[in-house]
Amino acid sequence: MKQLIFLFSILISFHCSAQSDADNFKTIYSTALTNGKSYEWLDYLSNQIGGRLSGSLNAEKAVAYTKAELDSLGLDKVWLQPVMVPRWVRGAPEFAYIETSPGKTTSVNICALGGSIATPNGGVKAHVVEVKSKEDLEALGSEIIEGKIVFFNRPMQADLINTFESYSGCVDQRYSGAKEAAKYGAIGVIVRSMNLRLDDFPHTGSMSYGDLPTKNRIPSAAISTNDAEVLSSMLALNKDIKLYFSQYCQQFKDVQSYNVIGEITGSQFPDEYIVVGGHLDSWDLGDGSHDDGAGVVQSMDVLRLLKESGIKPKRSIRVVLFMNEENGLRGGKKYAEVAKSKGENHVFALESDSGGFTPRGFTFDCSDAVFNKVLKWQPLFKPYLIHYFEKGHGGADIGPLKNESLVLAGLRPDTQRYFDHHHASSDTFDAVNKRELELGAATMTALVYLFDKYGTTTITTEDQLKD
Amino acid sequence: MKQLIFLFSILISFHCSAQSDADNFKTIYSTALTNGKSYEWLDYLSNQIGGRLSGSLNAEKAVAYTKAELDSLGLDKVWLQPVMVPRWVRGAPEFAYIETSPGKTTSVNICALGGSIATPNGGVKAHVVEVKSKEDLEALGSEIIEGKIVFFNRPMQADLINTFESYSGCVDQRYSGAKEAAKYGAIGVIVRSMNLRLDDFPHTGSMSYGDLPTKNRIPSAAISTNDAEVLSSMLALNKDIKLYFSQYCQQFKDVQSYNVIGEITGSQFPDEYIVVGGHLDSWDLGDGSHDDGAGVVQSMDVLRLLKESGIKPKRSIRVVLFMNEENGLRGGKKYAEVAKSKGENHVFALESDSGGFTPRGFTFDCSDAVFNKVLKWQPLFKPYLIHYFEKGHGGADIGPLKNESLVLAGLRPDTQRYFDHHHASSDTFDAVNKRELELGAATMTALVYLFDKYGTTTITTEDQLKD
Repeated sequence: MKQLIFLFSILISFHCSAQSDADNFKTIYSTALTNGKSYEWLDYLSNQIGGRLSGSLNAEKAVAYTKAELDSLGLDKVWLQPVMVPRWVRGAPEFAYIETSPGKTTSVNICALGGSIATPNGGVKAHVVEVKSKEDLEALGSEIIEGKIVFFNRPMQADLINTFESYSGCVDQRYSGAKEAAKYGAIGVIVRSMNLRLDDFPHTGSMSYGDLPTKNRIPSAAISTNDAEVLSSMLALNKDIKLYFSQYCQQFKDVQSYNVIGEITGSQFPDEYIVVGGHLDSWDLGDGSHDDGAGVVQSMDVLRLLKESGIKPKRSIRVVLFMNEENGLRGGKKYAEVAKSKGENHVFALESDSGGFTPRGFTFDCSDAVFNKVLKWQPLFKPYLIHYFEKGHGGADIGPLKNESLVLAGLRPDTQRYFDHHHASSDTFDAVNKRELELGAATMTALVYLFDKYGTTTITTEDQLKD
Repeated sequence: MKQLIFLFSILISFHCSAQSDADNFKTIYSTALTNGKSYEWLDYLSNQIGGRLSGSLNAEKAVAYTKAELDSLGLDKVWLQPVMVPRWVRGAPEFAYIETSPGKTTSVNICALGGSIATPNGGVKAHVVEVKSKEDLEALGSEIIEGKIVFFNRPMQADLINTFESYSGCVDQRYSGAKEAAKYGAIGVIVRSMNLRLDDFPHTGSMSYGDLPTKNRIPSAAISTNDAEVLSSMLALNKDIKLYFSQYCQQFKDVQSYNVIGEITGSQFPDEYIVVGGHLDSWDLGDGSHDDGAGVVQSMDVLRLLKESGIKPKRSIRVVLFMNEENGLRGGKKYAEVAKSKGENHVFALESDSGGFTPRGFTFDCSDAVFNKVLKWQPLFKPYLIHYFEKGHGGADIGPLKNESLVLAGLRPDTQRYFDHHHASSDTFDAVNKRELELGAATMTALVYLFDKYGTTTITTEDQLKD
């Protein structure tokens, strides 16, 4: 019997090596669309577990669930990598209103920004100064800002095609708005949500006080885009209106958590590692389906799809579900630290952390020589409408692994709807389309297949070696 | 004052002609994303009017509304083109159940197919024969089919990337299933909905009895994909179950309706016409936001975006909102008939009828010479992630215009979610994303701009003329 299995394995392996890359692509995409697991996994992660903020019970449930699922796939190794993570807790729901005159109020939708302190007991109420930037603060100065609530209201730029660029152009308000406004004596900060759509959902996200002394820190919250418009309009009519807000968030001591890792050990180069991953933590408002449940389940499915497609990797392929991308990046840093301490040779790392929408391509953080090689693979992707191959950022979690020889890449799905959901209670399972999610998993698998088969050494390098 | 305006016009026109195509593209896309009207129009069409089946009151409201909106744009001409359309009415809600034994029933979601007759008074109840194709019917023969309900259950193929191909591979069941099954004595037909997703929405769509005599016609309905799975599973366990269904639809006499047309008359070649359009009618179950409210409002915005961008077309640009694409194509046929009778020289026609999702490119129905010219425009579209340029079908409504010199094209948006909504009660406004819709309008405008500026004559033709 053992001999038969052996013979059968050889036949399978012969069959696969005889298959062209185009044939293997077809198998990968067909398997993903007819026998993918990513959607089922995401359903559990989103609807049975839910939001998975670092340090929460849900985050621990997500660690246990994904470990158990990886265990069931028959990989060569599955393990948990310990990492200490921050624990910030939102507490009781936030509350805010605009007061036009004593007793006359209109409530508005806000949420505390991740990392913010609470308001003092009973909340804060003050006049509001609307600004668009740090430069506006400087121009106004302490005289005008002191004792007031600063309202950052620079909207995301609508006419950029890539919405991540619009996000990058605005997120400074959220990340360092409180730190900057505190310098001028503001007592609180309200930031327009990072959302291109006008709706009622406030969007949270990380903020930092930098090196601001604890006594100088002020509470900061996001306001929905609709309510940012309301507040701005009301301020234009009457500078004397006041804003009230209360929030009860708290930062606790770091707690133990884990990266979840699974591996198919390479048949020819087991010491060369390829990593594919997303982050297991999410914000607490929605269920984190797009950010980054999608990346988690797609990455898990990459290893499963390789197996189901009968592809036996030459190199070791690891799925890494990083903990704490949202408010600390501790998982990404820990994975890189351990890899370095063990002298592990990572050759390629791919992250999916831009939502589970129809995949359009990848960005590559690598040398021109490698990039030119990758461009030659484009025709293989064309039947699957994967057309976007550009140099750019790989991903936050894989970033700390960066070194001269490692190739980093990020999956780039369609970006139009991402910020409708990002960090808000609207980031839920129903906003994910099964086929779009599966096409992402297939596209990642196809790229991993190519990097595994052909490695990352380039023609240029080979030519140089000959010289 | 008049002289000043004249001078200003010259300056504007000089400014525009001095602008590069890339600059004009940028203006068009920015205008669409920051000052588009398509989403607002669609909101009204979907939420204030709703489903617009040919011959219905809502269809007439849609004619009046879009005509009034076009009137407000300051075009050179706006008019209604009369066309007689069929009037099929669904009537009271359909009802269906599976009966496992007398009195034991499970209800299932169905809807009458467009053009079907009603069931006899009291509905029909019979044993069910499940088939996948016309060939299955032939293999089973009258002996088995006679007196039964035929259940067409061939699912859409999930592993095709373009979901329209999956649709084409299945829609024969819906269109001619009843005609075929009637030949073998079936008393009714139930068709699995043309939907890749498993859900509870039955999807309607047109069917035809062909030349089947009236007395031989049998009622046909669509069943939701979830219930198709249920019915199939129950049949696998017990061939003796029965299906009951009742429907009350009726075909009335043709009624008067209209295509809605607006025109910017060309400054240099007013007798060369460019048409951009979608269809104003929709099915009755949802509000027809994707099919084809999106195409209607995008087409209207093409003319508006040209004006807002300061582009003065050389050729005459017409928006045509075709009536009755869904169950008769009368509007498309009428427009072509009138154009031919007037000897109008149409040079380019572009249709949007594939949903309001992120645009990916176009299909072109034209000569290789023109197609090669079009391919040279691709780099202009690259910053807007428009990458899909293939030869293929233009669109149903513009099809009847086809002649040797006319170039036909269809906007090709992302197709993954389209059949979740197509012809079902889930085709609603909330399923349309504002930016995706606007990017479609901008992409259409950009292509119209190029065809207007450069015409459709090709380098090959010019070379031939020189010889």
